[in-house]
Amino acid sequence: MSHSMQKQEQPNPLEQLSDALDEDMRYTNAVIIDRMQSPVELIPQLATYLIAAGGKRIRPLLTLAATQIYGGDMQSSHKLAASVEFIHTATLLHDDVVDESLERRGKEAANLVFGNQASVLVGDFLFSRAFELMTECDNIQVLKILSNAAAIITQGEVLQLTAAGKIDTSMEQYIEIITSKTAALFAAACEVGPVLAGADESQAKSMYEYGLYLGIAFQIADDALDYNSDRETLGKVIGDDFREGKITAPILLALDKADDSEKEFWTRTLVKREQNDADLKTAQTILNKHDSIQGSLTLAQDYAAKAQQALDNIPQSPLRALLHELVPYTIFRKA
Amino acid sequence: MSHSMQKQEQPNPLEQLSDALDEDMRYTNAVIIDRMQSPVELIPQLATYLIAAGGKRIRPLLTLAATQIYGGDMQSSHKLAASVEFIHTATLLHDDVVDESLERRGKEAANLVFGNQASVLVGDFLFSRAFELMTECDNIQVLKILSNAAAIITQGEVLQLTAAGKIDTSMEQYIEIITSKTAALFAAACEVGPVLAGADESQAKSMYEYGLYLGIAFQIADDALDYNSDRETLGKVIGDDFREGKITAPILLALDKADDSEKEFWTRTLVKREQNDADLKTAQTILNKHDSIQGSLTLAQDYAAKAQQALDNIPQSPLRALLHELVPYTIFRKA
Repeated sequence: MSHSMQKQEQPNPLEQLSDALDEDMRYTNAVIIDRMQSPVELIPQLATYLIAAGGKRIRPLLTLAATQIYGGDMQSSHKLAASVEFIHTATLLHDDVVDESLERRGKEAANLVFGNQASVLVGDFLFSRAFELMTECDNIQVLKILSNAAAIITQGEVLQLTAAGKIDTSMEQYIEIITSKTAALFAAACEVGPVLAGADESQAKSMYEYGLYLGIAFQIADDALDYNSDRETLGKVIGDDFREGKITAPILLALDKADDSEKEFWTRTLVKREQNDADLKTAQTILNKHDSIQGSLTLAQDYAAKAQQALDNIPQSPLRALLHELVPYTIFRKA
Repeated sequence: MSHSMQKQEQPNPLEQLSDALDEDMRYTNAVIIDRMQSPVELIPQLATYLIAAGGKRIRPLLTLAATQIYGGDMQSSHKLAASVEFIHTATLLHDDVVDESLERRGKEAANLVFGNQASVLVGDFLFSRAFELMTECDNIQVLKILSNAAAIITQGEVLQLTAAGKIDTSMEQYIEIITSKTAALFAAACEVGPVLAGADESQAKSMYEYGLYLGIAFQIADDALDYNSDRETLGKVIGDDFREGKITAPILLALDKADDSEKEFWTRTLVKREQNDADLKTAQTILNKHDSIQGSLTLAQDYAAKAQQALDNIPQSPLRALLHELVPYTIFRKA
């Protein structure tokens, strides 16, 4: 998502947060660029391809904000923020191999350009570099939080893989999957701020909860957006989850209300994965008929409210206000 | 390699080391089994498939020996030894995806049984668990050593990928690749012992060097074994490197002495990767003609000598004697 494409009269909350942390984000980007270097040329080539393509940088921004709120050491925070972004990028690379993705961040997916082999190995490289960066902060507690999050993410990814095409997945199981694969890293990205700053445990817990619920809301909204044709006007690919047979919130809500012919449709397209060109449109029609996109966003709002509640325990500051505004933005964003 | 298949009148040095560290190895195996558990069933299934298949466990044995020599905390050492084995297993899983392997440890490769997707993700899980385990030792220096080794390994893997099929690879580049992809973890596995025990820097350096040179010798011998038909009698697959176009020590030595028709043969089979069923036999005939297997083992012995030299600086003990004997064994083993 480029800054200019989002340009409205007023910067959105994510842009406001970026602006507020502009200098720290520039240091963080410098760490990212520096640490993706390697004498093995293919590594910076592939990493640059992916990282230079942008992305929202929401996770490192959370780490920087959560550190600054508690007056923690910002130099360590830049490293942790870079580390969090590396973990995220590594999982994207491996996800795209696993999902056989065609596109990522508006560009042809790295696995298609550089091959699956390179994507697997460069993912491993970024993952290792993430851990190297963390160790430089000399804080064992932070290392425990982030290495635990990494293990949870991979469990979530495996869970998602085994749940694909299973239309008897429950809403609880879906929430468990997205909590692991997405929200755990959001939560860790936030929690390391107060921990690095030596803030008390209740503060760390509140920042963790903010990140966790924000991450769940973010992912539900993301899964709804994957069926939202408004997004096509922004040049985004839609329907990836549908093609991969992923059982996400809008599907679960539509399955709840499905008649026999709709059940047949979902079974053919998601379980048997027999899909033709017209099926995505049909899927969207069924989702709209049952208000499943809107229903998903309503579900996301429940988690959004919990995220904002968690902030009540955090000391008031302009950054806290921005984190508060960031919550609805992650749900009602268009891309 | 099963214990019984290797049975000779007298246990080999690796078996002797296993026997000497029997109790610690049992604790380490318990940690390995415990930490590969996950509520996501596919994870222990796949991990058990691979880890239960055995393997030599040489890396965790090095960590245990290197800790015990310096009187370090063995409970932490069991975790580090498990961590080292997890890193190794994760790289095996990803390697097999990258190399499209058919077999591993005498069983059908995990990527064929469980799919590439699961192999990538479970590799990531083991990698994350490795870091989680390390953090439990509360020793930042150890974390730095192992996370740095992990980054070097992945760089070596990428380097190997980009060097495949390039017959202008130099012997120096080959040594650089195997130093990164194999020896770095051997070195780290050894170095963490004295560091955990708080031994002085020169001891850590010597154990590091022992592991490094042992790892280089081990990998050269491994690459020679891949063309050794004696190994087929042990039920091992040979010729994997040949099929993947890997430029290893025996190939480099044979290329040095190749006449025009041999150069043509190597170009067709390794660069263009056009291979027929008779080609592996032809490759072996050419390697034998130029004594390239023997030449590789001689090269391995140079590094073996350096590994043994590094031990001179280590306090004398029965374990040091076993580490000394382990060196020639890694070169002249049959599988």
